[in-house]
Amino acid sequence: MQRIPVEDYAARIRELFASVRNRPQEFVPIALAADRVTAAEVRSPLDLPIFRNSQMDGFAVHAADVAVVPVVLPVRGEVAAGAVDPHALQLGTAVAIMTGAPVPAGADAVVPIEDTRAAGGGVEILRTRASGEYVRAAGSDLSAGSLLLPPGLRLASRHLAALAAANLSEVAVRARVRVAVISTGNELVEPGGPLGHGRLPDANGIALASAATAAGAEVVAVELTGDDPARLAAVLERTISGGAELVVTSGGISMGAHEPVRQLLEPLGAAVGTVDMQPGGPQAHGTYRNVPIVCFPGNPVSSQLSFALFLAPLLRETAGLTAVTRTALPLSAPLTSSPGRRQFLRGRRTADGGVETVAGPGSHLVAALAAADVLIDVPADVTALPVGATVDTVEL
Amino acid sequence: MQRIPVEDYAARIRELFASVRNRPQEFVPIALAADRVTAAEVRSPLDLPIFRNSQMDGFAVHAADVAVVPVVLPVRGEVAAGAVDPHALQLGTAVAIMTGAPVPAGADAVVPIEDTRAAGGGVEILRTRASGEYVRAAGSDLSAGSLLLPPGLRLASRHLAALAAANLSEVAVRARVRVAVISTGNELVEPGGPLGHGRLPDANGIALASAATAAGAEVVAVELTGDDPARLAAVLERTISGGAELVVTSGGISMGAHEPVRQLLEPLGAAVGTVDMQPGGPQAHGTYRNVPIVCFPGNPVSSQLSFALFLAPLLRETAGLTAVTRTALPLSAPLTSSPGRRQFLRGRRTADGGVETVAGPGSHLVAALAAADVLIDVPADVTALPVGATVDTVEL
Repeated sequence: MQRIPVEDYAARIRELFASVRNRPQEFVPIALAADRVTAAEVRSPLDLPIFRNSQMDGFAVHAADVAVVPVVLPVRGEVAAGAVDPHALQLGTAVAIMTGAPVPAGADAVVPIEDTRAAGGGVEILRTRASGEYVRAAGSDLSAGSLLLPPGLRLASRHLAALAAANLSEVAVRARVRVAVISTGNELVEPGGPLGHGRLPDANGIALASAATAAGAEVVAVELTGDDPARLAAVLERTISGGAELVVTSGGISMGAHEPVRQLLEPLGAAVGTVDMQPGGPQAHGTYRNVPIVCFPGNPVSSQLSFALFLAPLLRETAGLTAVTRTALPLSAPLTSSPGRRQFLRGRRTADGGVETVAGPGSHLVAALAAADVLIDVPADVTALPVGATVDTVEL
Repeated sequence: MQRIPVEDYAARIRELFASVRNRPQEFVPIALAADRVTAAEVRSPLDLPIFRNSQMDGFAVHAADVAVVPVVLPVRGEVAAGAVDPHALQLGTAVAIMTGAPVPAGADAVVPIEDTRAAGGGVEILRTRASGEYVRAAGSDLSAGSLLLPPGLRLASRHLAALAAANLSEVAVRARVRVAVISTGNELVEPGGPLGHGRLPDANGIALASAATAAGAEVVAVELTGDDPARLAAVLERTISGGAELVVTSGGISMGAHEPVRQLLEPLGAAVGTVDMQPGGPQAHGTYRNVPIVCFPGNPVSSQLSFALFLAPLLRETAGLTAVTRTALPLSAPLTSSPGRRQFLRGRRTADGGVETVAGPGSHLVAALAAADVLIDVPADVTALPVGATVDTVEL
């Protein structure tokens, strides 16, 4: 693989990604469906409201009986919310009714309690009400078979409430791609423990796993495999047998003596080469047991930028999430850039609506990346830009 | 409680909410910290990079030895990433070194491999490099004790990566308020089952639980308690003993015969009354065993609007999330509004940057609420507004 432009490499990864064996959708309980994206339109199986019910506490009546007021009607019983099959209303009578309770057959209006007054064994109706008043017709919100939720909708509480109201306890959502994250490198140890000489806490595992989750994927494994290609192979076998549909690795793809990813995958046909970008130039990709494997460099800044540029857009698209935002912004401070390679400088938005760089271009600046909120995309032939120049930024 | 303005009621709920016994922070593993908000600033316990290391694959040298090139230096060993305590460099020699590997004492520059050529048992250096070139100094990203992450930061993958790189496996985040959600009403059943006559699937449980989660709370219970005050009391005892710090109920606060929330809590001092808003007028609040309890009406649209107006802002503030957005928008279509009460109409943003209403004002329009993305706040004395009129909207 020659040194290739970022867009060409992104296209190659897109092609590889097309072979991910992800299911088109899965059904999840509504209690677990928040922030998932509908895979298909949802039609209501029922009228909403499900049955004709009262909008007020008051009295269900035959509207014709209250056409002239005041009038006293005998009260024949009460209908509470949840009442089972209330008796039909007899003409010339009223039935006490609660908000939400089913309106009895024969009744076609509800007189709110504040327009009435107790009168012996009956109720005095003080205000006339037309047929339909304070009665919520079945299907007046939505009729059975109508569209309840469109496809591609990111589910928030009000959507889940509508599903529940239609008596749906599950919903078909875009399936998450099952991703395994593997960090290589003998120098890496789990964060939080004692660090021996030359040892480094692994930042790639958490970085790539949480970025994949944020992009709508399901992370099924986060592993450290050192520098031994055989150990890497064993972890690939296990995670792929366990259902991983995409593997993301970091490290082990350079020209050195200890490059387990390259050593294992290049003989299997993986492409290893350099993309015209800094940080993140060295890149590789291939398949293992027909599962796509995307291999980023080991430096945590390089791996994070690589993920943002090559995998986040594809995973977000699959999950039905909004695309990664690219915005042209004016520089709030001048910028210098190394010649010869396209640079993705770390930047942050400024109070004046512009953007400025955060620290230098180095691929080891993990803390500086944490202080950034955008990447500034600087073409290879640009070495300096003045205040006010427009730059292309990628949202982090 | 008289009928009171929305803002006054919100202030009462804020006062009640101040007594929530929430812990100021909790420590969570970084793998579970995505989208949580830092409770305090985080300072790096270590220099970043932790040790001086090579930026390139190449040869570590004493810069003075390569001041005049070409020059051949004998190669004395190799330092890989993860190497333990490499030997110090002897003057006049070179050490092969990998990217990220510790630079041996005595070396002060790295010559990239592409600027060298094998020469017998040594290496021919073709290009001079100054002291410090291609060497990443310890602390050059961040020095030990410096600010790694500010307080109030919503954690994304790049922040978690920085924590890991500093060997931190846990982070102090704002604690979530533990919320119990209780739906009352004999008519309600769990969604998804068979519906008897007059029975309704409960939409309030999922609506309020998922809205609370989205507002940064931790939902510890979602319960159906019917119309029996004793059953409600038993569930309150259990959830509060189990750690609930805030209880949210729906239903059971009207003037009818079956009002379990009112029947249980009013004798214990709960305030029950009406807020000047539609939907959602009937409201109550109090405490149970010193735990705040906020009681919304039973209609799912009313309860959802009540949550959005009275609890979402407080929970989001506690969690450190961004405030609920209020935006003035122009109407894209005329609207009419019932007089006498402040209306929160369901609206949606239009392609022209304005807003229009979705369906009618009814509090039973669950599907219409699902199709909305904002509430349109219409004052009590307004009955009609033309296209182009500016309205106040609340983001859903």
